[in-house]
Amino acid sequence: MEKTKIILDCDPGHDDAVAIMLAAREPSLELLGVSVVAGNQTLENTQRNARNVLQWLGANIPVYAGCDRPMVRDKVIAADIHGSTGLDGPVFPPLTKKLEPEHAVQFLIRSLLESEGDITVVTTGPMTNLAMAMRLEPRITEKIRRIVLMGGSFTNGNVTPAAEFNIIADAEAASVCFRSGRPITMVGLDVTRKALCYPEIVERMGRIGNRASNLFVALMGHFCKTQKQVFGWEGGPLHDPVTIAYLIDPEVLVTKPMNVQIDIRSTQSYGRTNCDYYGYQKLPPTADVAVDIDVARFWDIVETGLRRYSEA
Amino acid sequence: MEKTKIILDCDPGHDDAVAIMLAAREPSLELLGVSVVAGNQTLENTQRNARNVLQWLGANIPVYAGCDRPMVRDKVIAADIHGSTGLDGPVFPPLTKKLEPEHAVQFLIRSLLESEGDITVVTTGPMTNLAMAMRLEPRITEKIRRIVLMGGSFTNGNVTPAAEFNIIADAEAASVCFRSGRPITMVGLDVTRKALCYPEIVERMGRIGNRASNLFVALMGHFCKTQKQVFGWEGGPLHDPVTIAYLIDPEVLVTKPMNVQIDIRSTQSYGRTNCDYYGYQKLPPTADVAVDIDVARFWDIVETGLRRYSEA
Amino acid sequence: MEKTKIILDCDPGHDDAVAIMLAAREPSLELLGVSVVAGNQTLENTQRNARNVLQWLGANIPVYAGCDRPMVRDKVIAADIHGSTGLDGPVFPPLTKKLEPEHAVQFLIRSLLESEGDITVVTTGPMTNLAMAMRLEPRITEKIRRIVLMGGSFTNGNVTPAAEFNIIADAEAASVCFRSGRPITMVGLDVTRKALCYPEIVERMGRIGNRASNLFVALMGHFCKTQKQVFGWEGGPLHDPVTIAYLIDPEVLVTKPMNVQIDIRSTQSYGRTNCDYYGYQKLPPTADVAVDIDVARFWDIVETGLRRYSEA
Amino acid sequence: MEKTKIILDCDPGHDDAVAIMLAAREPSLELLGVSVVAGNQTLENTQRNARNVLQWLGANIPVYAGCDRPMVRDKVIAADIHGSTGLDGPVFPPLTKKLEPEHAVQFLIRSLLESEGDITVVTTGPMTNLAMAMRLEPRITEKIRRIVLMGGSFTNGNVTPAAEFNIIADAEAASVCFRSGRPITMVGLDVTRKALCYPEIVERMGRIGNRASNLFVALMGHFCKTQKQVFGWEGGPLHDPVTIAYLIDPEVLVTKPMNVQIDIRSTQSYGRTNCDYYGYQKLPPTADVAVDIDVARFWDIVETGLRRYSEA
Repeated sequence: MEKTKIILDCDPGHDDAVAIMLAAREPSLELLGVSVVAGNQTLENTQRNARNVLQWLGANIPVYAGCDRPMVRDKVIAADIHGSTGLDGPVFPPLTKKLEPEHAVQFLIRSLLESEGDITVVTTGPMTNLAMAMRLEPRITEKIRRIVLMGGSFTNGNVTPAAEFNIIADAEAASVCFRSGRPITMVGLDVTRKALCYPEIVERMGRIGNRASNLFVALMGHFCKTQKQVFGWEGGPLHDPVTIAYLIDPEVLVTKPMNVQIDIRSTQSYGRTNCDYYGYQKLPPTADVAVDIDVARFWDIVETGLRRYSEA
Repeated sequence: MEKTKIILDCDPGHDDAVAIMLAAREPSLELLGVSVVAGNQTLENTQRNARNVLQWLGANIPVYAGCDRPMVRDKVIAADIHGSTGLDGPVFPPLTKKLEPEHAVQFLIRSLLESEGDITVVTTGPMTNLAMAMRLEPRITEKIRRIVLMGGSFTNGNVTPAAEFNIIADAEAASVCFRSGRPITMVGLDVTRKALCYPEIVERMGRIGNRASNLFVALMGHFCKTQKQVFGWEGGPLHDPVTIAYLIDPEVLVTKPMNVQIDIRSTQSYGRTNCDYYGYQKLPPTADVAVDIDVARFWDIVETGLRRYSEA
Repeated sequence: MEKTKIILDCDPGHDDAVAIMLAAREPSLELLGVSVVAGNQTLENTQRNARNVLQWLGANIPVYAGCDRPMVRDKVIAADIHGSTGLDGPVFPPLTKKLEPEHAVQFLIRSLLESEGDITVVTTGPMTNLAMAMRLEPRITEKIRRIVLMGGSFTNGNVTPAAEFNIIADAEAASVCFRSGRPITMVGLDVTRKALCYPEIVERMGRIGNRASNLFVALMGHFCKTQKQVFGWEGGPLHDPVTIAYLIDPEVLVTKPMNVQIDIRSTQSYGRTNCDYYGYQKLPPTADVAVDIDVARFWDIVETGLRRYSEA
Repeated sequence: MEKTKIILDCDPGHDDAVAIMLAAREPSLELLGVSVVAGNQTLENTQRNARNVLQWLGANIPVYAGCDRPMVRDKVIAADIHGSTGLDGPVFPPLTKKLEPEHAVQFLIRSLLESEGDITVVTTGPMTNLAMAMRLEPRITEKIRRIVLMGGSFTNGNVTPAAEFNIIADAEAASVCFRSGRPITMVGLDVTRKALCYPEIVERMGRIGNRASNLFVALMGHFCKTQKQVFGWEGGPLHDPVTIAYLIDPEVLVTKPMNVQIDIRSTQSYGRTNCDYYGYQKLPPTADVAVDIDVARFWDIVETGLRRYSEA
């Protein structure tokens, strides 16, 4: 079986960390590199977090630091959810894994230009790096096989009633990506809100008992605790890994082609992903939008992914 | 039992017509008048439709014509759904019921000023008349007991991905009403989309066999047909009567207090009702928003309402 | 000579007061009434100010109170310029002149409907009353002979860099008026900023020595003082009377037909009158915009106007 | 005398070409390189035009091609003004001057990082390259000595009533630059509209009789002709060279510190440079905005600049 080549562009972040876990050892995927952006925390933190996770996992994947702020708007972070490091919870050993000297935007440009058009770019943070790359070197656009992103919502947001975090954090970048003409799969809150990591899930993954499972427990323990403190609910949504789960097994999601436009002109609805679910506007579809998720299947994929770290 | 005094401000329209049916004979409600606005069709059509429905039902309720266009934006109508008359389907006998000479906005002002603060205003069309009344005579605002409206959505719209028809048709008017400080119950697409009038519902209501039931069948036959032609689905949503059903029996809806703001500054998201479902923005609630509907109960209320026309 | 019938819709306001002076005794004009709106100060203040001015002048012109707030947006006033009464400066005798019981919006509707299409509406405040009248009774629109307004700017504003006070105070109302299709003359800051009332002008008018001249001196003394305190310049611009001066003698202004659109969707540029001075957008002209003023001629018109109060 | 180091970022374009002429031989300036962006024409054309101009002048200045489209919005060009090549008029000899292999954005980053904070960046096109550079490598921002740009207007625009071409062509980039915190001098239409190149100016420069003068005549002959065809006026405004003239002799402009904000959220006023000329908003100044120009002095600077090509 041919592996799907992917670049994972992320801002770890607890749920990004789980996405990295799933991607790094998955036999059907070839993870070419992890590019990092500011988002859940500052770039200083997110790139260190990416290295800590990969070092913990023993995964020999290069990490590239990218943009430390959005394309146009001022920077926002989500410290209330992810803590002061962006990955509060686990205690990592001293960090020896190096950051690559190349800028993440250049890594994206180089990888895509040199490719045969077979790289899927997965973004689980603000889409700044990818949008900057497409604007700096427009020839990469047609080289992108597909963009799979966690972000947006066709119903309602999680920062404002209109907008989801990854999109509102850099709506201009999202707009550039959504207007690129490339195949896009948008995995939004509409499905990721159903991927709730309840204590029994943490317990189930903990029983695996390998290093990945231990990291999962340390991360999700903290994540669920802050979700409860900030929002008052049991079980935080594990947004980002749904993208990787979908690449591993497309059956985990139901998607629907829709015309999607990012509102970058409103003040109040800034960052809304206006998805024409019903096709009212008679415009051509521009993205496949996830509309349902098989939650049991998702957790099975996560468990299988974590178990791979028991091998070898 | 004390009756709840209501004014029904509407733009008939098939679903408005059913709302009128439910309200006109309901013993727990006192329908003071029907005020009409342009919306589903031109004012010329909507006011005639209101009179035709009330004449058909033998209901002695005054009808007042109001604004023939939105407060600020240009006029839109929904002829694709409601046909060239706005109430295509039934064949009405010659119209003898007169239109009241008073302007609907003046009727609202007069009724509210003379009231003891016990009138609920129900709007099932664009909110132009009520907003104009509050701006022309601000003293009425504190006299409004409650506003119950069909309009908006905390998820997604039905004209654009962002906006529902009654709100986008006059978002400025909606903004005025939502900022009035009065108690508001917003019955949006999130619940009315579940009030689907399938052929078996038409059949069930048809078995009642009185004038109201006959009108229901003539209206809904046409409505379901155009829904199928325009959108391709069986069973059109019966939006407007949910407001009246809720006044008759509040148990039919689950509501949740939310901060709601109307986007009147965006071009792309114009008319979105930004409802802070999860309270992310820490702003005080400004409306009770319907989040769920007991569909079986709703149809029972409709059936009971139609059966009242068999009495006397 | 046939008199030009006008209604003066204003928010006195020092410069509105001078506009009233010029209009009330001008033989070429027939001032049918003064309708008042909130703007420079609250409606409570502006309507009392209008009555005080007319009583002082001995002018038997009816005063109608209109809207106490803008059509859609929240209320703003300009207390820094016009003081806590809106007409600080003169000490008026006890007020005996009554307010008409009719609402200003109804007065506009009735006057226009009963007219032969020969009434010019002059607005020197937010355009709320006129816009509300056109929306409440659309048949008046074609009855308006012309709208002459003080407001807007094709260069830059005086509240924000984008917007002038009368427009930003109710941009939605201005948008309704500018889209009415009626002939419009826009007298904006571009010319009124040149009508600077320096101390020597106050002195010149003071030498006339009649009641109008005395009022002018009392008003302008205060107005110039606050302009100096707030902005640091000698000589405040006498915006509003330029409209009346133009009706008395059109030679006082140079106007140019332009396509004009009011920005009601921006947050930052809300209320800008986007005037296509150079015709870049190839859109049909919608207003005659004042582009230059003969300042000497203007002060001569003012002097002549004040002198008329020495007669009879 | 120490030379002022500059990078000229431009989109030639007739007036850009004259800016290059003035900068390339000016003894008080050290022109480190010409970076090029899409704007007046496509990048393909503007970079070739830059090379043609420098080759014609015999100036050994490197040319770097940058972004071929705006950061976020869709591409616009100004072919009506500058012709199908972007520099219609002169017939250039075969082009031998090479394009540098480095991307203009990288050239900006490298030059600024390696500098001692003594480089002034002059932009006479859309500000895409500079904004992209600041976002890709934020450490360059504090290294920029000053930004001098041709763009914007505190009065009215030349593409829409709100916006000037260089800003509206990439308002997001302009917004990034204006919020950079670096010293900015904005040379807008308010002054460049007065730098009108009448036939007598073309004649005057033609009398110099060197290669620069010949190119000026060939360029301006065409430019004035299209200005007349498109707008109907004699004498086109020579916008871009005013920036270089100002660096050569600051006395040519009167500037005033103002708070400047770019409207990137409006649809209608998109790209307006909202300059608080009068300080109404009590915000700190963010740019020195040119408010007047000594036109005679400007043409003297241009003549002196062209005459330098007679030397050596």
